[in-house]
Amino acid sequence: MNMISDKLKENNKELWERYVKHDFVVKMRNGTLNLENFRYYLIQDSKYVKIMLKSLIKASSLGPIEQTSKILTKIFQTRDKGVEVHSFLLDKLGITEKEIEKTGYSLVNYAYTRHLYYYSTIGWAEFLAAWAPCMWGYYEIGKYVIDTSNNIYKKWAEFYASDEYKSRIDIILDSLNSIDYKEELNTIFRDSINFEIMFWESALRNDETKISGIE
Amino acid sequence: MNMISDKLKENNKELWERYVKHDFVVKMRNGTLNLENFRYYLIQDSKYVKIMLKSLIKASSLGPIEQTSKILTKIFQTRDKGVEVHSFLLDKLGITEKEIEKTGYSLVNYAYTRHLYYYSTIGWAEFLAAWAPCMWGYYEIGKYVIDTSNNIYKKWAEFYASDEYKSRIDIILDSLNSIDYKEELNTIFRDSINFEIMFWESALRNDETKISGIE
Repeated sequence: MNMISDKLKENNKELWERYVKHDFVVKMRNGTLNLENFRYYLIQDSKYVKIMLKSLIKASSLGPIEQTSKILTKIFQTRDKGVEVHSFLLDKLGITEKEIEKTGYSLVNYAYTRHLYYYSTIGWAEFLAAWAPCMWGYYEIGKYVIDTSNNIYKKWAEFYASDEYKSRIDIILDSLNSIDYKEELNTIFRDSINFEIMFWESALRNDETKISGIE
Repeated sequence: MNMISDKLKENNKELWERYVKHDFVVKMRNGTLNLENFRYYLIQDSKYVKIMLKSLIKASSLGPIEQTSKILTKIFQTRDKGVEVHSFLLDKLGITEKEIEKTGYSLVNYAYTRHLYYYSTIGWAEFLAAWAPCMWGYYEIGKYVIDTSNNIYKKWAEFYASDEYKSRIDIILDSLNSIDYKEELNTIFRDSINFEIMFWESALRNDETKISGIE
């Protein structure tokens, strides 16, 4: 309980639960999630991942090389598996790269990706605090959803519940835990949890997408 | 009509009109805008301006020094007047710096400010395209609203309709017009107009504010 990662999660306990046990997640697990909503989510998520990686690389240039090189090694060594699952799902849902590109960002996705990018230019600690809810939360979500009887959602969850994915989280949290707690990091961490919740919500609403963005 | 600024506006004519003649604007002019909505707007706008200035400075480090130094000189030489009008309005509405700070960003304001910041790290041309709709549009809006019989909205409009403010726009558009048109700049410009429209809309709705942000 002295580690910053635990403290951040504990500080935002209720919000965290609303994120990892969101209706969207519960519906994946019990198989009642409408495929249209999942399709919407997957397209937005694909756009998200690109800026996330860009932000990770940008932030890495500001961090201690022992930590950043470990994280980049792990992320890129385990990237094929993620891309493979992702491609499988896109295929299953008939989503092409072209469609992802021409679909605009939802407002929340635009705000969230630029939030990550913003902190990636401010500092390594700030970026980690902004990034952790996404990476860490998805592991818990994967573990929860994996028991679903829906094959598509199961496939999705298997990746995030895997040991390989877990090994990413361990390294990211190690790096986060080398940092001293400060209130600002809590604010950044909390904002990201809020974005994750709004991200699910926009997918459940099939929000009209609006922002083109240039990557 | 060969200038990029005219082309950008012409390309997005209908959207531009929806921005500069938005209900919020029309209501300021005819004096029917609820003060609560203006108050909401003013707080969000105050938060916006801080990141806008930060982004301008950041982008200026990437631009040609003859252009950027001209713009920075003009912006900072005419800044006192803007701050004076702004302080007068904050005072009138009983808004303190403390309240501005502790009020969260609306989702659209967060997305918009990070959009500006994002392009300020990409390039000078990209930043100008993202920034122009705000600066340029407010001049037109000021000219339109200034005939209002409401003293508060008149005071607000007087600043944006002033020759001093106009001189900012001239220099910014000069700089923009030294750049060759490309489709990506149009996308960025259009996204910013969309943000401006959403900004008015969120103020009319008194949107719940959510994102804390760290500046």
